[in-house]
Amino acid sequence: MLILGGDGYLGWPTAMHLSACGHEVAVVDNYLRRNLCREQDCDPLFPVPNLHQRTAIWLRLSNHRIDVTIGDLRNWEVVANVFQRFQPDAVIHYAEQPAAAYSMLDRQAAALTLRNNLEVTFNLIQAVRTFAPHAHIIKLGTMGEYGTPNIDIEEGWIDVEHKGRSQRFLYPRQASSLYHTTKIMDTDLLWFYVRVWKLRVTDLMQGPVYGLTTSESERDERLQPFLNYDEIFGTVLNRFVVQAAANYPLTVYGKGNQVRGYLNIRDSMTCMRLAVENPAAQGELRILNQFTETFSVNQLAQRVHDVGRKLGLDVTIKPVENPRIEAEEHYYNPAHRGLLELGLTPNVLTDDVLAEMIERVLQHRDRIVPERFLFGIRWS
Amino acid sequence: MLILGGDGYLGWPTAMHLSACGHEVAVVDNYLRRNLCREQDCDPLFPVPNLHQRTAIWLRLSNHRIDVTIGDLRNWEVVANVFQRFQPDAVIHYAEQPAAAYSMLDRQAAALTLRNNLEVTFNLIQAVRTFAPHAHIIKLGTMGEYGTPNIDIEEGWIDVEHKGRSQRFLYPRQASSLYHTTKIMDTDLLWFYVRVWKLRVTDLMQGPVYGLTTSESERDERLQPFLNYDEIFGTVLNRFVVQAAANYPLTVYGKGNQVRGYLNIRDSMTCMRLAVENPAAQGELRILNQFTETFSVNQLAQRVHDVGRKLGLDVTIKPVENPRIEAEEHYYNPAHRGLLELGLTPNVLTDDVLAEMIERVLQHRDRIVPERFLFGIRWS
Repeated sequence: MLILGGDGYLGWPTAMHLSACGHEVAVVDNYLRRNLCREQDCDPLFPVPNLHQRTAIWLRLSNHRIDVTIGDLRNWEVVANVFQRFQPDAVIHYAEQPAAAYSMLDRQAAALTLRNNLEVTFNLIQAVRTFAPHAHIIKLGTMGEYGTPNIDIEEGWIDVEHKGRSQRFLYPRQASSLYHTTKIMDTDLLWFYVRVWKLRVTDLMQGPVYGLTTSESERDERLQPFLNYDEIFGTVLNRFVVQAAANYPLTVYGKGNQVRGYLNIRDSMTCMRLAVENPAAQGELRILNQFTETFSVNQLAQRVHDVGRKLGLDVTIKPVENPRIEAEEHYYNPAHRGLLELGLTPNVLTDDVLAEMIERVLQHRDRIVPERFLFGIRWS
Repeated sequence: MLILGGDGYLGWPTAMHLSACGHEVAVVDNYLRRNLCREQDCDPLFPVPNLHQRTAIWLRLSNHRIDVTIGDLRNWEVVANVFQRFQPDAVIHYAEQPAAAYSMLDRQAAALTLRNNLEVTFNLIQAVRTFAPHAHIIKLGTMGEYGTPNIDIEEGWIDVEHKGRSQRFLYPRQASSLYHTTKIMDTDLLWFYVRVWKLRVTDLMQGPVYGLTTSESERDERLQPFLNYDEIFGTVLNRFVVQAAANYPLTVYGKGNQVRGYLNIRDSMTCMRLAVENPAAQGELRILNQFTETFSVNQLAQRVHDVGRKLGLDVTIKPVENPRIEAEEHYYNPAHRGLLELGLTPNVLTDDVLAEMIERVLQHRDRIVPERFLFGIRWS
């Protein structure tokens, strides 16, 4: 199988996990995120070897070979070559600019996000159609596509009753960043081509992921996923953990009552494997909401505060002006049955999980650059 | 005001109409549609002077100057220069690849449609934000964004009641070509930036337009809009009229029970003027469904058949295999109150209107190339 965006926070652990489970894996990446992090001076907490180095380490450890292609998937020749070489039966698509804040930085960053995300999705669709029409596309979407509507969020679809008639629709989407909006546009594109070309697609609406390790990455510290803790590329819980380790106040945006569905990176790996091993039908757009627990930002901050204090850290919480435009008080009740039905057993966010994350970060405490916690990007 | 895509079937008549009504008008175009028509060998029925020539004729006739810029709006420098030069208070956005069939031709045509349409919309949004934050954007959308759901189509929005709670959403969209899907994606993009940047936007969901003349184009035949009658760029009623004039069977796709909302090009001009003269509020995405009457394809064919016969033409109707993937029997009840409330008085499709269209086309009968009626593009 092909993993597009195989260098990322999720891409690389997925490559190892599926490889360890016996799948033949090839990864493609153009190091876009590495380059953007360098440009914005927000490198991850610890250095991570490149894909050639990591696959070499993994081969020695596991005896599983992962093929590496470095190339830009916006370029059709790169996509066509990879498809012709590997004839994939499944393609996992992570190859997107992944940061909401980056997409709101300025015009150029927004344009890069729009072009990269849509053109890669488009090329993937065209390549599957041309070279591998039965391949299963597993696309990483986001729970952020739904936004925070005042009704229950269902799993991808909703039956609307209106003036005595009814129609099943894609659940209406309204996101709160350009990045999230490009994921909505990806969904539009996939849904159209599923209908006309009978593609086989799973769209995973994932919530924010936390965690530093997976079963495979624990085998050698050089195999660990990226850890971004900055305002731009860091996700909230990972950032709080690094702030706690640095004795830096936990930066809660606005009122902190924003609720989202979260999951451990280990569960993200399991979800991806379950989706791969239980493919969507030909002509089906299967949508699964991928998270295990919901928390408000305040709840997360309080949990990190309490566990950090137990570890002897001087953790404080400091609300800051919300740089984003989002509802800070809202209803939130999203469904997430599909992946549980496929066999997911959640790793919930216990104090032990948090303590282990903080302790791992403390090993790299000297590397933390506190200036990265707040760059000052404003949505407005 | 600025008219992006000012060379097109609607762009040029809009430029004249608003100019005649006293608005100061500048048009921008890169002749994309002229070039694509030439590449696909489906030039319009009669030659049309270029924008420099047409604006010169219009200036002599009306004493109104229309400024012309030839440039590609995907290029930020072109967009920025035009905005800095004109400081528009309104921008009409027609600058999209407009043909459903072209978007389904092959990978390159699809990629061009996706890139052109989204990047121009994106640059427009960024330019308004940067140079003219109070300018009113009037965007040409399409009724095709809604598809053919089994419930009434409302005007842009729908209140969904679900498990005892309610939420107003963008009316869910599901289109039947890549072209129509890019218009959905435009709507996603505009709706996002309206919320975060408080843009002032009107999105006109227009049905297929028919007609060869407007009040302004009648003043000199060189000012007439393009007339495409081919499978790729022609719209259905215009194509039927040309087929009737050519003694070519009217090519009904499939069962012919596909219903859509249609309007006369004169009403399209009025709708645009009404939208311009009654702007949306700052921070509002106003959506108006722009059509005047609904017809099935069979009804249109029968009307052209009957009027053509009265004019002595040997008109026949011939169902052909549907190249598109679309419902051929469906419920269709779309609302269209907004433009009537703003003052639109519809020009309905009378036999006289049809007869006049046919007679005008007969003047160019020798130019008709019947091979253009069916190229054989297949959605699947």
